[in-house]
Amino acid sequence: MSAETTTMSRPSTALLTDHYELTMLQAALRSGAAHRTSVFELFARRLPEGRRYGVVAGTGRFLDALADFRFGDAELEDLRQREVVDEATLSWLADYRFTGDIWGYAEGETYFPGSPVLVVESTFAEGVILETLALSIFNHDTAIAGAASRMTGAAGDRPCIEMGSRRTHDMAAVAAARAAYIAGFTTTSNLEAGRRYGVPTAGTAAHSFTLLHDDEREAFQAQVDSLGVGTTLLVDTYDVTTAVEIAVEVAGPQLGGVRLDSGDLLVQAREVREQLDRLGATGTRIVVTSDLDEFAIAALQAGPVDAYGVGTQLVTGSGAPTASMVYKLVARADDAGAMVGVAKASKDKLSVAGRKYALRRIGDNGIAQEEVIGIGERPENDGNDRELLVPLVERGRVVGATSLDAARDRHARSRAELPRPALQLSRGEPVIPTTYVDDQP
Amino acid sequence: MSAETTTMSRPSTALLTDHYELTMLQAALRSGAAHRTSVFELFARRLPEGRRYGVVAGTGRFLDALADFRFGDAELEDLRQREVVDEATLSWLADYRFTGDIWGYAEGETYFPGSPVLVVESTFAEGVILETLALSIFNHDTAIAGAASRMTGAAGDRPCIEMGSRRTHDMAAVAAARAAYIAGFTTTSNLEAGRRYGVPTAGTAAHSFTLLHDDEREAFQAQVDSLGVGTTLLVDTYDVTTAVEIAVEVAGPQLGGVRLDSGDLLVQAREVREQLDRLGATGTRIVVTSDLDEFAIAALQAGPVDAYGVGTQLVTGSGAPTASMVYKLVARADDAGAMVGVAKASKDKLSVAGRKYALRRIGDNGIAQEEVIGIGERPENDGNDRELLVPLVERGRVVGATSLDAARDRHARSRAELPRPALQLSRGEPVIPTTYVDDQP
Repeated sequence: MSAETTTMSRPSTALLTDHYELTMLQAALRSGAAHRTSVFELFARRLPEGRRYGVVAGTGRFLDALADFRFGDAELEDLRQREVVDEATLSWLADYRFTGDIWGYAEGETYFPGSPVLVVESTFAEGVILETLALSIFNHDTAIAGAASRMTGAAGDRPCIEMGSRRTHDMAAVAAARAAYIAGFTTTSNLEAGRRYGVPTAGTAAHSFTLLHDDEREAFQAQVDSLGVGTTLLVDTYDVTTAVEIAVEVAGPQLGGVRLDSGDLLVQAREVREQLDRLGATGTRIVVTSDLDEFAIAALQAGPVDAYGVGTQLVTGSGAPTASMVYKLVARADDAGAMVGVAKASKDKLSVAGRKYALRRIGDNGIAQEEVIGIGERPENDGNDRELLVPLVERGRVVGATSLDAARDRHARSRAELPRPALQLSRGEPVIPTTYVDDQP
Repeated sequence: MSAETTTMSRPSTALLTDHYELTMLQAALRSGAAHRTSVFELFARRLPEGRRYGVVAGTGRFLDALADFRFGDAELEDLRQREVVDEATLSWLADYRFTGDIWGYAEGETYFPGSPVLVVESTFAEGVILETLALSIFNHDTAIAGAASRMTGAAGDRPCIEMGSRRTHDMAAVAAARAAYIAGFTTTSNLEAGRRYGVPTAGTAAHSFTLLHDDEREAFQAQVDSLGVGTTLLVDTYDVTTAVEIAVEVAGPQLGGVRLDSGDLLVQAREVREQLDRLGATGTRIVVTSDLDEFAIAALQAGPVDAYGVGTQLVTGSGAPTASMVYKLVARADDAGAMVGVAKASKDKLSVAGRKYALRRIGDNGIAQEEVIGIGERPENDGNDRELLVPLVERGRVVGATSLDAARDRHARSRAELPRPALQLSRGEPVIPTTYVDDQP
């Protein structure tokens, strides 16, 4: 159990894959169809129930994971020993490099039902085995970003702090912090998200810190001695009014902040603000936490709150922990090499055959009007319209990586461009309609 | 983007930690309180709404992660550059090894509100920085196992297949497959769960495989040629009746299975069973998938279904994606070295001070009656009762690692021991009450 740990490793992502991707590959290699040029599309048939827009997140993580999607000796040996696929397939996997093209919505962009968030063009073999990894990343990150955007929308100019690591899987926590930042959160509690993605990290203190000391004064003194008067003191371990008094006595009126983590936060925030002002601590910020979601944030906007700490509801997507993205074959070559649009003949699940193109129709007032999706050809750009598909991978080379701050800025711009009802929290329809334009007259 | 990938690495888990754990550590190191002997307890104040029992999962993952909880040069340099903590704290972290004791419920055990699932005894410093990692692992894995157990309970002798990887974070998917196996699932689609934890993997085929080929017959032929007649063919891409006919023509009556992934599964399963039997394929199994949860499984028990594939609802905890476990300081030494029970004076959140012990009270009929939690001392064992806390770590050494199959067997036994209403799917109270026994008369 005491093996050396390492930091710089890049573990292979190749086995973060469903068993059937590889058995389908084996069967298609044998039938020869594996080499047909194919187009896979990643999209959502619907937004989470009642949501008015979605937020694309995970693109950067996907491009990183794609670079590490390699079947090394250990992966191949495992597949051999467990008899997942035959030797011919293992041999093909050993040489696997994605050599196709990928287009997608830029990270942070808003999306709607049917938006072709990712378009993968390659042989069937090269594209099919990316299905599970792509969906895992986009379904998770997009779900978190969608919830996060509603929270930052409700919070307006007040900062939102991501602190949900403890409520979700240890690595999902890192991705959640990243997705929340894209959607406008200002900081995270998660240190790995700080290291790996440069998301600013911050923290206050837990009740255990107060309880560790003989009394609250001793705890506050210890925190201020070590972290300075700019720190944020947790004031609800015993009695809030007493704690605020002690806090200002210990730190002085320059105290950075106090945190409330229980009770009626609106009432308490008002009482504490009044008390702080009376004590001369007019600049001391009030941070509230305690199972907040976008609705609680909206309600607290009426109170003197300076920042919101959000945990559980952020990392669980506020009721929608997954984004229901799917990855479907929409076109493939026939024997003559001509591309044929394909779709399941489903009564209950909408799938539209054919390679898609997409643009956001923008009115003269600068407001988005429509998601226009061209089937088989680019829809005409009215001049104001914004092309949504950008090149991410060209002939296997990643060309579409952008910084996290660029994604964050993009999200802010894209959301601001939506019709105003986008920010309403009540359940509703997608705030702009999706329109398909077919190349067949 | 083309760095070498590696498989055998053991990345450090140390930064899967909230910022405030380290700033509290810094302040406590300075005040001296960091070295006070402390007891932290990981428990849930309540089960997910309406659930009748919980399932402990994550213990094995936590013990692995604890062994890799090391602040190496890269972690320390990151914390230094981002000015998270001071040099004295970095120096303490560089030498960090957990040297205390940990007891816990064995993995797979059922639990109830207040059950001390993990008890960590060490200095405050050594214990506090494990908070985030422990909670991330237990909150996720326990949520999945709790949902999974209801599904396998509803499915009775019919196997459940875990196939939710694409609906959750890429690494959470691996842990979800592991947790589902503990709770009685027989296989997973996730290849990494197969490699890492030895969970059996399996798979069928996707609609894309059928759509890739010129027609359904060609696709089925390709699959059977490569994977044998024992394979499972997906029969709902176009028309189910036609597909079943073709499937048996291609594979013969020895065809392993057919999969239904849409429509009214109960009606279709009956029709398909009749058709298969008529065609002589009496041994061909019917696998159903398509947004199943425990309620859908229970309804399908009336039909001729041979296996259930469960995805979204499994990995999202079927409505409860996190288990609301908390990690609280419940006792710590005073200046004289005497242990003092501590708890937040919360009106809305129950916390019980003091070191806990736990046993499951078992009646003469072998059925569980009560979760008995001793505060400060072991509750008396009636003879039939089962001690619940087992040693996991002794003076920093892992002593409680068990195999995944042992955890799976333990869960089956523990669930079978609960009163029969445990398996009812309707909302209810915990199936046995939690009783506290205090050492103070």
